[in-house]
Amino acid sequence: MTDVNLPLHPLLAARWSPAVFDPSHVATTEQVAVMLEAARWAPSAGTSQPWAFLVGLRGDPVHQRLVAHLARSSAAWAPAASILVANLAHRFVEGTDWDYSEFALYDLGQAVAHMTFQAQALGLSVRQFRAFDRAGVEAEFAVPAHWQVTTMAAFGVSPAGAAPGDDPARPVPQRHRRAPEEISWPSRPQSAPHAGETP
Amino acid sequence: MTDVNLPLHPLLAARWSPAVFDPSHVATTEQVAVMLEAARWAPSAGTSQPWAFLVGLRGDPVHQRLVAHLARSSAAWAPAASILVANLAHRFVEGTDWDYSEFALYDLGQAVAHMTFQAQALGLSVRQFRAFDRAGVEAEFAVPAHWQVTTMAAFGVSPAGAAPGDDPARPVPQRHRRAPEEISWPSRPQSAPHAGETP
Repeated sequence: MTDVNLPLHPLLAARWSPAVFDPSHVATTEQVAVMLEAARWAPSAGTSQPWAFLVGLRGDPVHQRLVAHLARSSAAWAPAASILVANLAHRFVEGTDWDYSEFALYDLGQAVAHMTFQAQALGLSVRQFRAFDRAGVEAEFAVPAHWQVTTMAAFGVSPAGAAPGDDPARPVPQRHRRAPEEISWPSRPQSAPHAGETP
Repeated sequence: MTDVNLPLHPLLAARWSPAVFDPSHVATTEQVAVMLEAARWAPSAGTSQPWAFLVGLRGDPVHQRLVAHLARSSAAWAPAASILVANLAHRFVEGTDWDYSEFALYDLGQAVAHMTFQAQALGLSVRQFRAFDRAGVEAEFAVPAHWQVTTMAAFGVSPAGAAPGDDPARPVPQRHRRAPEEISWPSRPQSAPHAGETP
């Protein structure tokens, strides 16, 4: 779904984040196991592995407890996905406000990317999101204070022919990317990567 | 290199972080371009794309300027890699101490993971590291204060037969991973993911 001619790996070239999932597709516990295995073997700073996952398959108790804490926006589409995963970062040393690792969030992002790559190899699509009640999920699952439910991810099958423009919550698909020369800094050594740009 | 029987995607199953690189292997600018393309199309919160990269090919001026700021530990092995990349996160809104994105580090980690998959698909291995003078690199390349040189990554060819145990800086390879049931929390709902564990 990218607009480039460079030979990206097919799983990367085909990746996008659907917001419509086939509510009849059922994922297997074996698929979940291999997705978690992909995350488990991701690299991390000092092999700190600052990650954990709450995994619900549609219809099971964990799924139901996760769905209860979705924001209205994600509740419109995420429950139809076959798998909901809450992605947890080990933020602090237990009982302190010291960072467990400077790279806890960075490494969690990597682990979720590895999980995504594996899910795509299984024929599943993925959409990550933040539209949930973080404190609600943390209370629901008694997440200890030194951990954080950082993001959630929905995994499932996007209907045949689905494309970014089909997202009812986002009629103009945000598939824009900055130009390669904007993210590769040595090509423009005189200026900042995005100097003057605002979020 | 994993010790599991689950059918991980071959690129994930084969991934490890070498600390010995073939100093005669030369990467191409085309390889760099497609690796950056992989990072460019990674997902990010609100498509904020909070990443930029300083890319040096062994022997070019950027590479030389990066090598000058390696710590002694990484200077022993990283210069032999074909490509050195400094991975930058857009941490703050320019001129403020406000987070640019809550997910800047998380998203940079994802982008580096995507770059890693693509590099592996090109036959390259990757080792990420923090053993460099962050302030030195930031000054060297005039990185604006709202950006951070978060990590570096070395890409290249690991010699035939190389294995984690070959790391001279780490004679006992840290290939250990927590058990699947330790990182998947719903399987043990009565306790914290790693309660009582310390870094």
